[in-house]
Amino acid sequence: MNRIKTISELRKIISDYKRLGKTIAFVPTMGNLHQGHLQLVSMAQKQADIVVCSIFVNPLQFGEGEDFAQYPRTLDDDCHKLQKIACDIVFAPAMSELYPQSKQQGQDQTQVVLPGISDILEGASRPGHFTGVATIVAKLFNIVQADKAIFGAKDYQQLQIIKQFVKDLCFPIEILSHPIVREANGLAMSSRNAYLSKEQRAQAALIQQSLQKIAQQLRAGARNYQQLENDAQQLLDAQGFVSDYISIRCPDLSLPEEHCRDWVVLAAIKLGSTRLLDNIEVSL
Amino acid sequence: MNRIKTISELRKIISDYKRLGKTIAFVPTMGNLHQGHLQLVSMAQKQADIVVCSIFVNPLQFGEGEDFAQYPRTLDDDCHKLQKIACDIVFAPAMSELYPQSKQQGQDQTQVVLPGISDILEGASRPGHFTGVATIVAKLFNIVQADKAIFGAKDYQQLQIIKQFVKDLCFPIEILSHPIVREANGLAMSSRNAYLSKEQRAQAALIQQSLQKIAQQLRAGARNYQQLENDAQQLLDAQGFVSDYISIRCPDLSLPEEHCRDWVVLAAIKLGSTRLLDNIEVSL
Repeated sequence: MNRIKTISELRKIISDYKRLGKTIAFVPTMGNLHQGHLQLVSMAQKQADIVVCSIFVNPLQFGEGEDFAQYPRTLDDDCHKLQKIACDIVFAPAMSELYPQSKQQGQDQTQVVLPGISDILEGASRPGHFTGVATIVAKLFNIVQADKAIFGAKDYQQLQIIKQFVKDLCFPIEILSHPIVREANGLAMSSRNAYLSKEQRAQAALIQQSLQKIAQQLRAGARNYQQLENDAQQLLDAQGFVSDYISIRCPDLSLPEEHCRDWVVLAAIKLGSTRLLDNIEVSL
Repeated sequence: MNRIKTISELRKIISDYKRLGKTIAFVPTMGNLHQGHLQLVSMAQKQADIVVCSIFVNPLQFGEGEDFAQYPRTLDDDCHKLQKIACDIVFAPAMSELYPQSKQQGQDQTQVVLPGISDILEGASRPGHFTGVATIVAKLFNIVQADKAIFGAKDYQQLQIIKQFVKDLCFPIEILSHPIVREANGLAMSSRNAYLSKEQRAQAALIQQSLQKIAQQLRAGARNYQQLENDAQQLLDAQGFVSDYISIRCPDLSLPEEHCRDWVVLAAIKLGSTRLLDNIEVSL
């Protein structure tokens, strides 16, 4: 496995592969890889000849007071896992490689901005988050120049935003999504699960269960979306969670009408100081 | 010459050329081509095997009350000129190709935003202009996937902004600039010169002369930048112009210190209802 730190070195290798007619699939991550990430890499391996996995904790997508400093960084361990599943290239640049000079704080850094979809749900809770995500992903797309990129469906809104800017800005890349990978108890896998105690991990299964309950109710014909959301939130909050939001939306994240037949139910729930995301897609 | 209207058709042709190992140079324009544009194409022909010239009047970079509707559209004439100088490909997409559906007004269109440099000079006079420019140029870069792109130095701030976002977002393209092409009397060539009467065209030579005068004064040791700017503005305004700004800047458009040895002097000047740009670079 090729472990690469610089843009110029990566570009050289990629252009060599392209000259040989090889196709490239790309899996961007912030590292601390779990089974969810590894399944993205496995999916990528079925989609292209060469797989690039990037590992970079992007400061631009963390707000003030968020967990940028404490976010788990486990590069050697990550590389070991990727090597075991025969990933071709790990791109793990230093901060100064992606944000040279004074750009580390993001001042004057060119931004990729999506009005509207960036401001709701996660964007309302984390102002600037999706500008940071779209900006780093655009940079990485331009660096890697892959044919396809794979993202996990746990970050549903992020996936929609990436699809949107790729379409709007005509990036020459195909975006694929991989279903949420879960722990045995149903908890969506996330690097932030590492912040949970053993008891919290067990308890966090309730998030998925509350989304499943809403899904059942939608399938059974319930259409009082607000009521369904409130009931689920109250149930979770009574169990010691602090719900940021539970929201029933159309697949494109617009607010659903009564006659809808497809929904996504999204949740952002705090358990102690850990903020967890989950979602479930429902279709009649 | 290949005259192409759709993204998919252009991508196919470009990828065929790339498979043959051909290099691509790109000249984006809003059409109404004059000698300045044609010299960009000639420069591009020296830089790469295949030259793509795009013609698209981009609504996103025009503000309310600006001249989007009246901007001269002369596609057949433009294609004739490009054919005569053996340009390989003209890409002239319809509005709906670059801004599908409701995106025509730019609502919810992903934007490429450069804080700081977009807000001064032209950006202060034309809010949103450079977001519109950066966004369409990023789209076109992703569509054409050229090795190099050529821009005229008349739009000096635009050139800096394009260089900046290409660097920040790691676009895999080299940006080259071509010196300002001028009429016999010194007036910088521009599609908007078509709005001028014969008398105005003659009079507009004074803009370049006033920049030349500042350049002389800088070379002679004058460093009271504000005074030099004011004197030039007053002179022009006394001749019937309305100065938007005349500004002495560092090459990166920051405000110059006294010990500077390189400057650019930028002007935006109205003559009647026509707004004209010019600039001059000065080095000791």
